[in-house]
Amino acid sequence: MNVLPVQLFDAESSTFTYILIAGDGKSAVIIDPVERHWERDLAHLARLGLELAYVLETHAHADHVTSAGKLRALTGARAAVPSGCGIAPAELQLGDGDIIGFGAHDQIAVLHTPGHTAGSVSYLWRGNAFSGDTLLIDGCGRTDFQGGSAAALHESVVGKLFALPDATRVWPGHDYKGQSVSSIGWEKRHNARLANRGKDDFVALMAALDLPKPRLIDIAVPANRNLGLPHGA
Amino acid sequence: MNVLPVQLFDAESSTFTYILIAGDGKSAVIIDPVERHWERDLAHLARLGLELAYVLETHAHADHVTSAGKLRALTGARAAVPSGCGIAPAELQLGDGDIIGFGAHDQIAVLHTPGHTAGSVSYLWRGNAFSGDTLLIDGCGRTDFQGGSAAALHESVVGKLFALPDATRVWPGHDYKGQSVSSIGWEKRHNARLANRGKDDFVALMAALDLPKPRLIDIAVPANRNLGLPHGA
Repeated sequence: MNVLPVQLFDAESSTFTYILIAGDGKSAVIIDPVERHWERDLAHLARLGLELAYVLETHAHADHVTSAGKLRALTGARAAVPSGCGIAPAELQLGDGDIIGFGAHDQIAVLHTPGHTAGSVSYLWRGNAFSGDTLLIDGCGRTDFQGGSAAALHESVVGKLFALPDATRVWPGHDYKGQSVSSIGWEKRHNARLANRGKDDFVALMAALDLPKPRLIDIAVPANRNLGLPHGA
Repeated sequence: MNVLPVQLFDAESSTFTYILIAGDGKSAVIIDPVERHWERDLAHLARLGLELAYVLETHAHADHVTSAGKLRALTGARAAVPSGCGIAPAELQLGDGDIIGFGAHDQIAVLHTPGHTAGSVSYLWRGNAFSGDTLLIDGCGRTDFQGGSAAALHESVVGKLFALPDATRVWPGHDYKGQSVSSIGWEKRHNARLANRGKDDFVALMAALDLPKPRLIDIAVPANRNLGLPHGA
C-alpha cells in the first residue's frame, strides 16, 4: 500500500516528473521528464544507484519540452509513448491495456485516457495512477487543442479513472496550488470540475473557459514529438 | 525496497516535510511540518484518507516555525520529539534506540545524531533515513548554535548514518539546489563535506564557514520549543 514514486517538480511550468523504483531496488522508469532538469534527474538516478529502463510520456506536452530523447541517449533507456501522440522516434508505441515490465517483478499498465489530447494515457503501477493532464487534483487539463475533447475527457475520467479502487493514489502531471497527491476516492467526491457532473454540463463548462493559447505550444509540441531533440538529431 | 514517503517542500525556507504512510494504508506520521503549510498538509491527509498518528520533529528548527502543535490539536495526533531539544509540551520525548509504532505493522527507529543541534535525531523507516539537518545531500547542517558541534556531527554521520546499509535512502531536512533524495552509499563516497574526511579536517572546515546568524532564530527556536504555538496557548 505504501509503494510510492519519487515526485520531482519544475517550478517554471509547475510540472511533476516521477521516478518509479522497481521492487528490486535497481531498475527505474521516469515519467514526463522536463528538458531543463535532465542533469538533476540523472543525478537522482546515480545517487540511488538506479538503472533507467524506460522514459515514459503521458502525452506530447504543450507547456514544456521533454528530456526523453536526451535521457534515452545518455542512459540507454527506451522511450515508451502513447501511440496516438505522433512521437515517432520512440521505441514503444503504447496502446490501451499494454503492460510495461521493469525490474524483476514490476509492471505498469497503460490506460488510454483521451480528452486533454487525443493520445493521452495514464499509467497504473502498484496502486498509483499517473494521470498526466487528464485528471488533476481538484481539476483537469484543458481540452481545446491537440485533438482535445471535453466529452472524451469526461468519459476517460468518469468511465475509466473513477472506476479504479478508491484508495488508488492520483499523481497528476501538474499542480499550480502546492498540492502533490490525491486519491481516486477523493477526486470522485470532491473534484471541482468532475465530481458528480454529467457529461453535457462538463462540456459546457469546458467550452466556456476561453483560455489563452499556451505560450510555448508552437515550440514544445513539435519538439516533444521528436522526444525533445532538435529535428534532424 | 520501494516504500517511500510523500515528500513536500516549503520554497520559502527550502524545508522538506515528509508524510509516511503505514502499510495498512490508513495511518500516517508527518515529519518536520512547516507552520505556513498546515492546511496543505491536512488536505494531503484528507485526500489520501489517512489518520495522523504522530507529528515528529528532527530538532528544534531555527529557520522556520513548526505546525506540530496546530496539527496535533486539529487531528488528535501525538507529538514526538527528541528529548534533548527542550520541546516540553510534546507527549513523547525520544531517545536513541526508541521505536515508534504506527499503523498495523510499521515501526520508526530513533537514532540520536547530535551535531547540528545537541538534541538532533534521525528517523529510520523501511530503508529510508530522515536525516533532518544532520546529513544533507552533498552537505550537512551548520554546527555553530543550539549546542551544535562539528566533532559530534562527524561522529553522528560517519559513525552512525554511514554505518547504515548503502541502499538506505537519505531524505534530508533541507535542500537548496533542487535535489530531493540520495542514498547512504552515495553520500559516503561523494558528500563534499563528509566523504573520506577525518574529524579534525571536518572540524576545521566547519569552523572556517563563518555563517551569518539565521534571520529567524530568535523567533523560531522559542516557538518550536512550544510546538509552534504561541506561549501560553
